[in-house]
Amino acid sequence: MSHVLDLAKRLIAAPSITPATGAVFDELEAMLTPLGFAVHRFTRGEGAEGSDEAPVENLLAIRPGPEGSRHFAFAGHLDVVPPGEGWASDPFEPQVRGELLHGRGAVDMKGAIAAMVAAVAEVPAEAGTISFIITGDEEGPALHGTRALIDYMAAEGIRPDLCLVGEPTSVHRLGDMVKIGRRGSVNIFIDAEGTQGHVAYPHLADNPLPRLVAILAELDALVLDTGTDWFQPSNLEITDINVGNRAHNVIPALGQARISIRFNDLHSGKSLSDRVMAIAEKHGGKARPIISGEPFLTEPGAFSALVSKAVEAETGVTPELSTSGGTSDARFLRAVCPVIEFGLCNATMHKRDEAVAIPDLAVLARIYARIARAALALEEG
Amino acid sequence: MSHVLDLAKRLIAAPSITPATGAVFDELEAMLTPLGFAVHRFTRGEGAEGSDEAPVENLLAIRPGPEGSRHFAFAGHLDVVPPGEGWASDPFEPQVRGELLHGRGAVDMKGAIAAMVAAVAEVPAEAGTISFIITGDEEGPALHGTRALIDYMAAEGIRPDLCLVGEPTSVHRLGDMVKIGRRGSVNIFIDAEGTQGHVAYPHLADNPLPRLVAILAELDALVLDTGTDWFQPSNLEITDINVGNRAHNVIPALGQARISIRFNDLHSGKSLSDRVMAIAEKHGGKARPIISGEPFLTEPGAFSALVSKAVEAETGVTPELSTSGGTSDARFLRAVCPVIEFGLCNATMHKRDEAVAIPDLAVLARIYARIARAALALEEG
Repeated sequence: MSHVLDLAKRLIAAPSITPATGAVFDELEAMLTPLGFAVHRFTRGEGAEGSDEAPVENLLAIRPGPEGSRHFAFAGHLDVVPPGEGWASDPFEPQVRGELLHGRGAVDMKGAIAAMVAAVAEVPAEAGTISFIITGDEEGPALHGTRALIDYMAAEGIRPDLCLVGEPTSVHRLGDMVKIGRRGSVNIFIDAEGTQGHVAYPHLADNPLPRLVAILAELDALVLDTGTDWFQPSNLEITDINVGNRAHNVIPALGQARISIRFNDLHSGKSLSDRVMAIAEKHGGKARPIISGEPFLTEPGAFSALVSKAVEAETGVTPELSTSGGTSDARFLRAVCPVIEFGLCNATMHKRDEAVAIPDLAVLARIYARIARAALALEEG
Repeated sequence: MSHVLDLAKRLIAAPSITPATGAVFDELEAMLTPLGFAVHRFTRGEGAEGSDEAPVENLLAIRPGPEGSRHFAFAGHLDVVPPGEGWASDPFEPQVRGELLHGRGAVDMKGAIAAMVAAVAEVPAEAGTISFIITGDEEGPALHGTRALIDYMAAEGIRPDLCLVGEPTSVHRLGDMVKIGRRGSVNIFIDAEGTQGHVAYPHLADNPLPRLVAILAELDALVLDTGTDWFQPSNLEITDINVGNRAHNVIPALGQARISIRFNDLHSGKSLSDRVMAIAEKHGGKARPIISGEPFLTEPGAFSALVSKAVEAETGVTPELSTSGGTSDARFLRAVCPVIEFGLCNATMHKRDEAVAIPDLAVLARIYARIARAALALEEG
């Protein structure tokens, strides 16, 4: 699998700051077509007239196995976060320095997609159906990315049995962590309204800030749970409070705050939103939730076992099965089939001089090949 | 006293948005010199190089009475707040419409200063010493106004026995309210600091907002007092909270709030600041007070009685002795001698189309003349 480094370089060399379209998808299509994949690409999110939405490209590639065979999917994204300033080399000109390949997307996650491509070259078509579910909008709003791919797959009757997302889940060394779930996430915007007035005449005004403070104090005191076997305790953070009243002698008319809750599968976005809204209303305020993702858990079992076994076989490391960290497109794919996330070391992701250890690319490709073969060979149930 | 209307018009016609200098002081000097006053004018607050301070003019006029006679002072300001938009006529072109004289400063307080000038014309020099303590910066920061006048008077050994400030204290009709004191005022700025981080990894961050909320909740629950014979209860308002964190997934590093306390003479600015600082520190925050004024009370007695009697004689109204409302330069003058505030109806002050009822100008001049005569005739002690 010596060519995995070349594949990664080709993907990095196609700039694809989120949302991505075009060249980077041309590269991936050119890699997959010779391997027997039928590639379907489509663009979404052109936006209404006057909207500032930018188009998002999506790619679904399928290499069908024998009639009735199982279907295993690799999923991921080709868009990257903006490089920022101060790189030692051009972030979109892949550069090898010592053992490292530098470039934006090296670990998140063009390196992993290169490893997936290298892996499928080692899995015979007779083993079963393999697909690539790849979007150009995971790092952005994620409105027209994986969700659009899932809609398309549903319309076409395409449904994988298992799915592996190539997010960089490894922490200190390749293989030390596999994600079997993610917490849910909800942001809730809290308003307390009153009547403006002069501080010297408080009886003619109605200060909303004591109500806002009472709401936030009660929310901050909540203990949502103490965690589960697979999840850490749900956590609520007050992330913003704003009044913007510059006049020292004026009682303001409005106070606003925002909280963020990362929650485990003892809750849903709605159950928490209802609870926060009730607390806000009790104190005379209002709460408006925006749920960005529900929690999910792929219960440890045959799928996680085959992933762990593949990791151990190639690295000697027994991965920790974790549900920590932020959200990923796995929150959408979990509605299609069981999902696990596994990929490169995440130390440099989203940072200046993002880089992957070159030996890890080949090891990851071998792990992915083992996972694909084992997932396709898995007995039902 | 038919000329009081003309005096008011002349003062209004000299624009004097705070801080005031020049023409409006020329007008007042031209009115007082013929009445036997020695006028001293000086400018302060030119500011250091690069400062945005604007100069402030101050005027001290004295008409000395017989050796050993008492000294009564009228005090006030010639600066006005900006007119704002939408006036029916030019705010600096005095206009009579029906019974009303329109113009910025009509009630706050060029009309009252015109009434003072008209009043002293009716008080013989033999009655005692009369002075005018007039600044061009009462509506602004008040750093270089009445305070500078007090410094000058102290340096010159000039000390009135009693002082009347011409603020518009009347509410529904001329004479219904006299101010015998004012509450103190302090603004306190509260900071809570922490460590920024990602909401998904709260153990790596230190959210300061729960501390800020705890501080504000404890402050809001304080009952400072239940009022006194002459003062309403002290009052604390949360006037601002700001974090300014636009990133939904970020725990912020700093939260800031501001409170305003209007307090009676059971407290001092320092006693309240110390209390707030202790609460802030208990929760891991910091508080920084800016005391804008200490409370004062001119205990009801001979001075308030002669003011009430003068009001009753000219209006038939018995004034309420009050300590309500905002602050005025009386907070500085109270250090010199007993101070009472009395003036025109305040319904239109600081508003569009500020106006004074023309008959009130002449009535106020007669009240002021009675007050001056009675104050100069008062027995010591």
